Amino acid sequence: MSINSFGHLYRVTTWGESHGPALGATIDGCPPGVPIDEGMIQQWLDKRKPGQNKYTTQRREADEVRILSGTFEGVTTGTPIQLMIENTDQRSKDYGDIKDKFRPGHADITYFQKYGIRDYRGGGRSSARETAARVAAGGLAREAIKALAPNLQITGYMVQMGPHKIDREAFDWEQIDQNPFWVPDAKAANDWAAYLDGLRKSGSSVGAIIEVTARGVPAGIGAPVYGKLDTDLAAAMMSINAVKGVEIGEGMSAAMLTGELNADEITMGPDGPEYSSNHAGGILGGISTGQDVVLRFAVKPTSSILTTRRTITKQGEETEIITKGRHDPCVGIRAVPVGEAMMACVLLDHLLLHRGQVGTNQGRIGPEA
Amino acid sequence: MSINSFGHLYRVTTWGESHGPALGATIDGCPPGVPIDEGMIQQWLDKRKPGQNKYTTQRREADEVRILSGTFEGVTTGTPIQLMIENTDQRSKDYGDIKDKFRPGHADITYFQKYGIRDYRGGGRSSARETAARVAAGGLAREAIKALAPNLQITGYMVQMGPHKIDREAFDWEQIDQNPFWVPDAKAANDWAAYLDGLRKSGSSVGAIIEVTARGVPAGIGAPVYGKLDTDLAAAMMSINAVKGVEIGEGMSAAMLTGELNADEITMGPDGPEYSSNHAGGILGGISTGQDVVLRFAVKPTSSILTTRRTITKQGEETEIITKGRHDPCVGIRAVPVGEAMMACVLLDHLLLHRGQVGTNQGRIGPEA
Amino acid sequence: MSINSFGHLYRVTTWGESHGPALGATIDGCPPGVPIDEGMIQQWLDKRKPGQNKYTTQRREADEVRILSGTFEGVTTGTPIQLMIENTDQRSKDYGDIKDKFRPGHADITYFQKYGIRDYRGGGRSSARETAARVAAGGLAREAIKALAPNLQITGYMVQMGPHKIDREAFDWEQIDQNPFWVPDAKAANDWAAYLDGLRKSGSSVGAIIEVTARGVPAGIGAPVYGKLDTDLAAAMMSINAVKGVEIGEGMSAAMLTGELNADEITMGPDGPEYSSNHAGGILGGISTGQDVVLRFAVKPTSSILTTRRTITKQGEETEIITKGRHDPCVGIRAVPVGEAMMACVLLDHLLLHRGQVGTNQGRIGPEA
Amino acid sequence: MSINSFGHLYRVTTWGESHGPALGATIDGCPPGVPIDEGMIQQWLDKRKPGQNKYTTQRREADEVRILSGTFEGVTTGTPIQLMIENTDQRSKDYGDIKDKFRPGHADITYFQKYGIRDYRGGGRSSARETAARVAAGGLAREAIKALAPNLQITGYMVQMGPHKIDREAFDWEQIDQNPFWVPDAKAANDWAAYLDGLRKSGSSVGAIIEVTARGVPAGIGAPVYGKLDTDLAAAMMSINAVKGVEIGEGMSAAMLTGELNADEITMGPDGPEYSSNHAGGILGGISTGQDVVLRFAVKPTSSILTTRRTITKQGEETEIITKGRHDPCVGIRAVPVGEAMMACVLLDHLLLHRGQVGTNQGRIGPEA
Repeated sequence: MSINSFGHLYRVTTWGESHGPALGATIDGCPPGVPIDEGMIQQWLDKRKPGQNKYTTQRREADEVRILSGTFEGVTTGTPIQLMIENTDQRSKDYGDIKDKFRPGHADITYFQKYGIRDYRGGGRSSARETAARVAAGGLAREAIKALAPNLQITGYMVQMGPHKIDREAFDWEQIDQNPFWVPDAKAANDWAAYLDGLRKSGSSVGAIIEVTARGVPAGIGAPVYGKLDTDLAAAMMSINAVKGVEIGEGMSAAMLTGELNADEITMGPDGPEYSSNHAGGILGGISTGQDVVLRFAVKPTSSILTTRRTITKQGEETEIITKGRHDPCVGIRAVPVGEAMMACVLLDHLLLHRGQVGTNQGRIGPEA
Repeated sequence: MSINSFGHLYRVTTWGESHGPALGATIDGCPPGVPIDEGMIQQWLDKRKPGQNKYTTQRREADEVRILSGTFEGVTTGTPIQLMIENTDQRSKDYGDIKDKFRPGHADITYFQKYGIRDYRGGGRSSARETAARVAAGGLAREAIKALAPNLQITGYMVQMGPHKIDREAFDWEQIDQNPFWVPDAKAANDWAAYLDGLRKSGSSVGAIIEVTARGVPAGIGAPVYGKLDTDLAAAMMSINAVKGVEIGEGMSAAMLTGELNADEITMGPDGPEYSSNHAGGILGGISTGQDVVLRFAVKPTSSILTTRRTITKQGEETEIITKGRHDPCVGIRAVPVGEAMMACVLLDHLLLHRGQVGTNQGRIGPEA
Repeated sequence: MSINSFGHLYRVTTWGESHGPALGATIDGCPPGVPIDEGMIQQWLDKRKPGQNKYTTQRREADEVRILSGTFEGVTTGTPIQLMIENTDQRSKDYGDIKDKFRPGHADITYFQKYGIRDYRGGGRSSARETAARVAAGGLAREAIKALAPNLQITGYMVQMGPHKIDREAFDWEQIDQNPFWVPDAKAANDWAAYLDGLRKSGSSVGAIIEVTARGVPAGIGAPVYGKLDTDLAAAMMSINAVKGVEIGEGMSAAMLTGELNADEITMGPDGPEYSSNHAGGILGGISTGQDVVLRFAVKPTSSILTTRRTITKQGEETEIITKGRHDPCVGIRAVPVGEAMMACVLLDHLLLHRGQVGTNQGRIGPEA
Repeated sequence: MSINSFGHLYRVTTWGESHGPALGATIDGCPPGVPIDEGMIQQWLDKRKPGQNKYTTQRREADEVRILSGTFEGVTTGTPIQLMIENTDQRSKDYGDIKDKFRPGHADITYFQKYGIRDYRGGGRSSARETAARVAAGGLAREAIKALAPNLQITGYMVQMGPHKIDREAFDWEQIDQNPFWVPDAKAANDWAAYLDGLRKSGSSVGAIIEVTARGVPAGIGAPVYGKLDTDLAAAMMSINAVKGVEIGEGMSAAMLTGELNADEITMGPDGPEYSSNHAGGILGGISTGQDVVLRFAVKPTSSILTTRRTITKQGEETEIITKGRHDPCVGIRAVPVGEAMMACVLLDHLLLHRGQVGTNQGRIGPEA
């Protein structure tokens, strides 16, 4: 039982703090024979990397990943893979003022209450820098998935920022890579830019909702009843910093539907079952249906803002704080590649688990059944 | 790695199917010395028991729990506790018509695609009867919690049924036990009764949102970063049948907040830190703050309805189906004690885990810190 | 993390005490589609059953197993399998004399020191009755193995009882089932009978060494470096009551060999690599070579003897004790089917794990490599 | 489930190969507040370091450990601790001759059969270099133990090399650090030096038995029935490279004892129970008695010898091989600190686990019980 690990057979342990020498992911259970090099992983880290535009933190980190173990002659060997990212921008500064103050909305106070330690240099282990290690692990997972489910494709994108939602009618996969918010709606991208710029200038921040869709997931993946595909996805997303809600398919709105509306009817297509709709988000009873797996998660606004807030010190004195720093007005933007990475890790894990539990997909629907 | 288990130190494995001889929970890691008898567990099973009123399934199950191991002279011994519930109402009937048909919205089709098995007698392992075992495990957890966190109190209640939400202004803890829906709002209880009666008569069904609140949770409980308290709660709730979304604190609505609104300000009270609000739902960085832990989950409408839906057979032929049966028009009602039980199991687990990891709560905020 | 569980993908949790209503095994991860009925499991329980001859305890237990979940129409479904054995001979008696005394060599004192509980009715959870649940789980494992490794055959036998060892020159597989000791040496069986009869009459007891051989294990099974096949076998055997040592291949005698003697030379046979010898016990680097997997474990003499021993009470008073009871003069005899069962569980587990990790056996030695 | 991890609450994952850039240990679950620096860990690595005298491999590795995460201001924070050791002596050479040959007694062939990969540069993941990471993890464990069991002291030493055993009558704790073999017998140290020198010059190798004793282990530690203290110790030792047997207390010799001889009688001392002997090796029913915990493990001779052995190639051709290299004539010597490290990790793990499961040691023997 490692509390800093996730996954059953594709097991990822992340380690490292925001202001230590390095952070990384120790990955156990990657299948052998997967072609991999640092560039394949780096592309995803670059997507998450801070300081790329004015909408994300100005901390400058190269976020260069090194593979320290587990490969030989360009392929994985089946042994643990160590992915290390050195911290380069651990800006030295005078912490005097905030050293003993707890930042509201941050985990400073609870880490102190649990561990008795106050790492005043930054978020330490609770910093969003930890997600760089997740993205690295997800990049590897994507490569490993190729041999097991060649058509599987994972795409994350923002669907809401503050009060602004995308127009589902205007949804366009091609737009996602064309704007700094990974929004599948060109008009929204434009509108949001102005909105976020205003927030940034005022030193404020805002929340967001990210949707991640996996297309090409084979039917039959998932492990009832406590390792359900949706259970593991919910845990994976909720474990990301600042996430406060997770939805599969209809999500919270399922409460408003009647049984007639919610049940996706089944017909027979040339390649197997087809469904009239996807209220289920591609998962029934914790097992994939073969439809798109669709989830959403909500990210709260970062608590580092330029407005004065009331707080207390370690000594229990009441005081005030302004959290200056190099922070994102909408951390949801950089959560997009993190959500994709978690989806990749969970799906690879369940592809492997299914193979271990069942061998090959057993129940084929058709005349011979 | 047991896929039918959850928990780290308080480890619950449920077993059994809707139409087998029995079902139950194998519990490993309950501390020794907890006073327990079958009655203490039975009270929670009775809360979930079917057939209690016209709003829940008419299947008649005594749901009587037997303790088969792990106790001696009325207290737990530290060894595994086997809680068994025999199935008594496995009504024999002619399945001829639906034997080969998949019920839309149910897990029949995905279980078949995964395992190659079609248990046509009912939901089998995917049936909501599995949740009886969870409730039993939760009942034991409540007793074990008493020694570790004497003030901890867990309460579940419905906050939405279909389009109808409770009036938060009218929230009244005392009302929860006074109506068949566990609604903390007397007027809502009345209105919902009429609404649900209509649905029941028309053979339809509807979804719901359940909220579970834990009061008296000590600060410092939770295990970053992949065993966070909210991560484990999200997984626990999402693993319940028919759940499609989970929220902590503000949940999905956190997306709409600015940093100023979202950050709960901290002041110093007589017994430790106090907060101006609880947008965080009692959890920061995966660790409890000492505030109420508040979560919500959405339950989809049961897919067993009297309206004809299109589906296919095992042989891949298109056909239609009406799912008659002894089902609940709103399964969300009986999900209330299940949600409470999962909350109890997760909190006990983290109380134990905290003790193993840290000993006693280490960081005390005050003059001596 | 369940402390009463073992296995990675074939996960067995045993539960129950010697004097409770029942005991059993909750098995998670058995593949679907395995033909199974109670008789297939019962045959192995009958082999372990007490009271079969004068050399084993006179406690009379039917040890009848019931399958409570996880099967449908005679095959496993992929869901948890509950195997329950009811205790029938919980002889009521006056414990007055020994109620507060700790029996030397038994776990009474350490269980009390750990849990604060003294279950004076017998061994409780530390009783060898727990091994009945292991044997049931092993019986199921044997059936599941058939589809994965059809030639795999597991045989346990005694090779030493007290000072008496078998004659390796006289080793005869056919003899094993022909005598009450499962000894592969007819003469030894005869000699040991007289020896053990003497011990039994004098109320004494003696230790033993059991060897378990698995023939037909495919090459490539095992998971370095902390889930090695030999690591998991060592843990499995050491977890059996009264076991004090475990050896793989040469075992402790490997210390006396030189490198020249110890290295098994490799040649090429018609079906793959062949070895000139098997000092390794069929395992190199934690992975099976395709040779016989051979292990031995030593069982200490039961501590229940008719000779007075010094001991203390719960209150710390010095006293004496004679442990009357229905015990085995050589518990090693009944450890034979237990060792076989653990071997079966570990091998099935690693067959499944290998499939999950690697798919099919990847490295084929031959011209195309 | 990580196959490259061990431990329940003190969870160690090792990573890295003999010829990669680095190796290390990712440690999750170390309690917060443990004073630690690299020097405290380095002392144990130095004990294991190769090239220190003519009896160990001439590979020159500084084996310098770096702490990359999990500490702040000189104490552990409760977050994962990454201990990294860079490989510096990855001597480049012409592997042409042995590239496709399997070295008998090594894991080359089984790794290839499992993973389809032949890392011909050395042992790769199966190399004994992996044990450096264990020693680092053990060094940290020793520091963490100090707060939980201040009197706990772990000492490893050789008791047999080839046919030569120590004289138990001459056992002297003070001698252990005075000779290159960590032998508690001055005469043996002298004799063995001459013996091993002969083996080294002839290019041969020999096996050994190491004993590890833990003094000052509190009573009540250990977790029945599959996480018993002896079970976990057996697994820990058997997972070390080249280990073929593990014994607790009497070990394999327990087979030869009668019940009268084996049962350690109990008396009452000033600080609690005392025992007339320690056949049990300090463990009853998987739980510590408070006596010394004593185990032994056998290490086979290294298979890298200068004598020609028959083998095959990847292509299945029969051939011969001489394994030149920088190897140890008796790998058992360097296994001493590795055995100590594993003992430290297991004991710390069980101290933490006990705290999580039971809180404080519950059953006190004495007048008030």
